[in-house]
Parts: sequence; structure tokens; C-alpha cells
Amino acid sequence: MRPWLLTPGPVELHPRARLVLAGPQRHHRGEAAARVFSRVREGLKAAFGTAGETLLLTGSGTAGMEALVGGLFRPGERVVVPVSGKFSERWAEIALARGLAVERLELEWSAALDPETVASRVDKNVAGVLLTHSETSTGVLNPIAEIAARVRAQNPEALVVVDAVTSLFVAPFALDEMGLDAAVAGSQKGLMLPPGLAFLALGPRALKRLEPYGYYLDLARELKTQPRGQAAFTPAINLIEAADAVLEVLLPELAGHQAEKAALNARLYTLGEAYGLRPVPPEGFESPATAAFWLPEGMDAEAVKAAFLNEGLLIAGGQGRLKGKIFRISLMGYFEPEQLEEVFARVERAFGAITGRF
Amino acid sequence: MRPWLLTPGPVELHPRARLVLAGPQRHHRGEAAARVFSRVREGLKAAFGTAGETLLLTGSGTAGMEALVGGLFRPGERVVVPVSGKFSERWAEIALARGLAVERLELEWSAALDPETVASRVDKNVAGVLLTHSETSTGVLNPIAEIAARVRAQNPEALVVVDAVTSLFVAPFALDEMGLDAAVAGSQKGLMLPPGLAFLALGPRALKRLEPYGYYLDLARELKTQPRGQAAFTPAINLIEAADAVLEVLLPELAGHQAEKAALNARLYTLGEAYGLRPVPPEGFESPATAAFWLPEGMDAEAVKAAFLNEGLLIAGGQGRLKGKIFRISLMGYFEPEQLEEVFARVERAFGAITGRF
Repeated sequence: MRPWLLTPGPVELHPRARLVLAGPQRHHRGEAAARVFSRVREGLKAAFGTAGETLLLTGSGTAGMEALVGGLFRPGERVVVPVSGKFSERWAEIALARGLAVERLELEWSAALDPETVASRVDKNVAGVLLTHSETSTGVLNPIAEIAARVRAQNPEALVVVDAVTSLFVAPFALDEMGLDAAVAGSQKGLMLPPGLAFLALGPRALKRLEPYGYYLDLARELKTQPRGQAAFTPAINLIEAADAVLEVLLPELAGHQAEKAALNARLYTLGEAYGLRPVPPEGFESPATAAFWLPEGMDAEAVKAAFLNEGLLIAGGQGRLKGKIFRISLMGYFEPEQLEEVFARVERAFGAITGRF
Repeated sequence: MRPWLLTPGPVELHPRARLVLAGPQRHHRGEAAARVFSRVREGLKAAFGTAGETLLLTGSGTAGMEALVGGLFRPGERVVVPVSGKFSERWAEIALARGLAVERLELEWSAALDPETVASRVDKNVAGVLLTHSETSTGVLNPIAEIAARVRAQNPEALVVVDAVTSLFVAPFALDEMGLDAAVAGSQKGLMLPPGLAFLALGPRALKRLEPYGYYLDLARELKTQPRGQAAFTPAINLIEAADAVLEVLLPELAGHQAEKAALNARLYTLGEAYGLRPVPPEGFESPATAAFWLPEGMDAEAVKAAFLNEGLLIAGGQGRLKGKIFRISLMGYFEPEQLEEVFARVERAFGAITGRF
């Protein structure tokens, strides 16, 4: 039996996505396709909470991260990158590959960002700050609105760019209202689609700063064609049609969906703590995208994953320097209510097996 | 009714691809996924005909083109690019964006490349030649093996890099035997999958020359992880599983499949010429990926496309400077034998409608 995916991406697919993906191939040109493309871009504007622009790129979330760094900053410019996990470290790596002067703010991989500390690194010469909203590798949700406000106070010109890959659709997000300038997300996370599409949001300041970058990841080029409902290059049209189908039902109930995902994630923590497991994120900074626990004393990650697999559940271990130290369980994906109760029953049995309790 | 896709990509899907894509989400890590990933890479080595390496990138064919140009050439290096259609022009644009010194060899958009003419531009200072095997915008199949041989005679160090996006799987291809160094293809063409995956092939000389480029499109990075069955970033695993399913049945009968596609394409030309339509490619240089005809006298492209749509067939017009001058019909996609007879009956009625004959 295929296990249920409790990994923080890819996740169990939304049934509407599966229905579309089971269908025949559509073409990406023509009026019908352009209408779908434009509907998805509009839906993403609502999801990201911006009156600016949204763009679709065929690629993983990392492609979107590079497209933002490449389009918004020029080699030699200074950016501040707080590094508190694998994905914030990726920001630093991408910025370095772009030739930026990267000021890394090194933090514990498990810490939540402190707005004051981040802002203290921002002076008049800083062109931008690269933030990770939901640090998927640690399960921490960072207070990006507060950070943006402090950064603005230090330097109103600095762009605040956010990795919302695992926060969009499961945590409240509002680009304009939170004072952010640009953000990126991916299809295989909160939207419950397969991987292969990156979603970009650009507020007015980012749109003004955007310049050509490379070729395939050039958002300036995409901005010329996407408002007409066309990507510059053949897009993953099947995923875009699936996104359209899911957004249609998800957006009208987005706040409720986010509350439900947060509640499910909190239930994972409550259950885990009852078994003596210690959460990785500091209290109050739990990302709804994934629950992360330190490994039980004397247990290795493979044994923990095997205990869950024994219950028909695929979970994730740690990444980078947290490999072999933590494990992660995500309920970002789609489950029917009765499946969810079964999931929790199985998680509880796995918790029992790995902790030897009850 | 949804029309059948007779466009030169995306195309009608292979039924094995549809079966996989209708299934639940798989995860891209773990041993099972790594085995699939490796099988696809091995299958692509057979398809590309190389003892070198193959790589998968999540993105369109254009992403793969940029990855090759970025990894194989350094800013300031000279490359020769014969431009005879929209996709060979794309090579030139990508090379320019990379900061290369681009020597464009301007040709009619409908010409086949002449090996002597291309080679005459190659001296000791040329780092590479960027070729288009099947120029999808004109329906021309270029004699890349002959060109590679002449280029080598001029400069044995120059890399020969080939866009095989619409030739792989439908036209004979053999990277090593043809004296080519690197090639790129895309999932939504001859492999009959949805768009979203690029396939790369690197021969020994290309592997030696490869250097890091950017971040997401960095083939040097992918070369470190893909031999272990893992992409550096979350790949379009659903498409990779679908590729695995199609390659399993396609590779053992590849020569027969290519012969069939060439025969079907030739039948389109024979039929079209019977209706007085003029083929775009010179005789003997027809790509099996698509038949291209000049528009009938006094007919615009929209009217031609409408006549085909009236028969339930979606075809393509011209691109770039051939927009409004030609139309294209492709049988690259999957059809059952009885569907094919129906397709030809409909094509014949559409030919009759647009030419007023019979």
C-alpha cells in the first residue's frame, strides 16, 4: 500500500487537482487557456494579498527564489539574510550566486527571527532583506510583518522579499498589508498540487525595481506576456488548470482553511507532547505547514520514519545540519474528515512506538 | 468537444502517461523514487545515444537551453548560431543574455542549414556552435551530423550543442555517433507527456567543460546529486514517473516508432500537396515533428485554423516572422490506429475547405 504523504511537500493532492490531471492534454495558447491563466494570476493576487502583480514560472520554488533575487538586485548590492534553517540558507546561497554582498545573520536552526535583531543589521546601504516566512526545515513561522516594519524604519528603500513556499494557503499572508515587497510560493505545498510550478508576487516597489535577469527566469520578460494570459515559454499548463480548479474552491474559504490547518498542526504538537516529544519551534512560532519534533532520546531518524511507515504514513526527517536530529509531520495536504481521524490514530500509535509510552 | 491536439507540442498524451498522472502524489525522496529517477536517466541515455550523462530539469525546454549555454560557455566566448527560425533565434537570444559574443548566421526562415556554410564561420576562436535539429517553427530537420563533422574539421575544440526538443523520440538521434557534445529536449513533444520537464544530454567533452552557472539552472550542481537518483531541488516527480512508464514501452521499439512518425508526417505532405498546398521545408529536410505549409493564396492563418477546428483538430499557425504566413500540423502525439484514420479523414476535409478543391 502506498503510504499517505505527511511530508511538508509534496502532499496529498486536492481531489479537484487529481480530476484535472487525469484529463487529456490541453494547449497553452488560445483564448480558453489565456482565461485560465489569467484567473489563476488573479486568484494568486487574492492569496498573496497584493494589488501588484503575480506571475507563474514552470519550475520549483527555488526557481522562483532565484528569479526574485536576480530581478530585484544587482551584483554588488548588499542584502541581509537571517539564516535559521535550510531554506533561509538557500536565500543566502542564491544571493551569493547572484554576486550580491550577503550579510548572513547566523541563528540557531530552530530559532524564530527577532525583528529587532534583523533590523539592527539594516542600514542605508542595504538593498534588501531576504526572509523565510515558514522555515520548513524547522517548523518555525517567522513574524515577517513585524520584521518588515522594523526594517522599513531603518531603511525605507530596502526591499523585503519573502519565501512563502510553505506558508501561502496555510498561514495568513498579505503582501501589501504586511509591508512586504515580493514573495514566492510553490504548487506542491498549501495548494495541494504536484510540484512543478512557482508562484511569484510583486508589490509596487518591487515592480519598479525589477530588471531583466538571465533568460528563462527573467520576470521582466514574463511581465510583458503574462498580463495577456501567456507565459513567455511553454508553461506547465496541466498544473495551471489544476491550480484554477483548486483556487476556485479554496479561495472563498481561505481563512477557514488556514484556521483548520493551524488547528490540525497544533493537535499534532499536543499529541506529541503528551508522548513526551519536544517541539522544535519556540512556543507561539509554530508554522501550520509542519510539526517538527526533536528525535526521542536514543532513537535515530530512520527508526522513527520506519515506525510511521509501519502505520502507512510517510514523514520527513531533518535537513542539512538538522539531519538525524529531528523529524517532521505535515498535514498541509488534502484529507477527508474521516481520513484525518484515521491519520491521527496512526500518528498516535507511531508516537507510542517511538517513545515506548502507553 | 475538446479538439485533438495536432500542435507541435503539447501533444496528445501517451495512455501510460495519463494513467500515472491520474494517480496519487508520490514523494521524490527515498529509494523507490531514486530508482525511477535513475531509470529515466538511463532511458534518456539510450534515447539521446550517449555514454555520457543525462540530467532532468523541472522547467520548459528553454530552461534546458539556458542551462547548457550557461554551463558550457563563459561570458565573452564566441559562439556561432545559424538562425533559420524561432527556435534557432532563441539560441542566439540566450547566448546574448549570457554575455557571449554571438555570431549570427542569418538564413531564410524555411531554409535547411548547409554544413559548409555553417562550418565556414568556425575558426580557432569559436567556442561552440548552437544548432537546432528540428526547427519546429519551419518544419525543417537540419543535417546536424554533417554540420558537426565540418565544424570539427575547422576546430576540433568547438562544442556542438543541439536543440533536440522536437526531434528526440521522433527522428533518429545519436549524440556520440553524430559527433555532438550536448543536447536538450522537452517532455511535451516526442515523449507524449505534459510540459514541465527538460531533458539534457552531455557527452564527455561537454562534461569536461561544464562549470557552475547561476543556481537553479546549474547543471554542475545537478551532476552531483542526480547520479544518486535525486534532483537538487524538488523535481516534477509526477512527470518523471510518467516518463518512466512511457520510456519502458517506447525505447524497445524506438526505431519503429520513429519510422511511423516520419511516415505519418510524409502522408500529411503528400495529402497537402494533392490539395495544392506548398510545403515550407526544402525536399529531403522535412522534420517528422511537424508538417508546415505556406498558407493558401488569399487565406489568413485564423481562417485555416478555424477550418481545422471545425473538424475538431487544433493546429498551429506560424511563429515570429512566419506568423500569418504558414500553418503547421503535427502527429507527434499519441493516436490509436483507428483514431489516426479519422484524423486523416478530417485533415483531408479541412484541406478541401481551405483550398476549395474537391
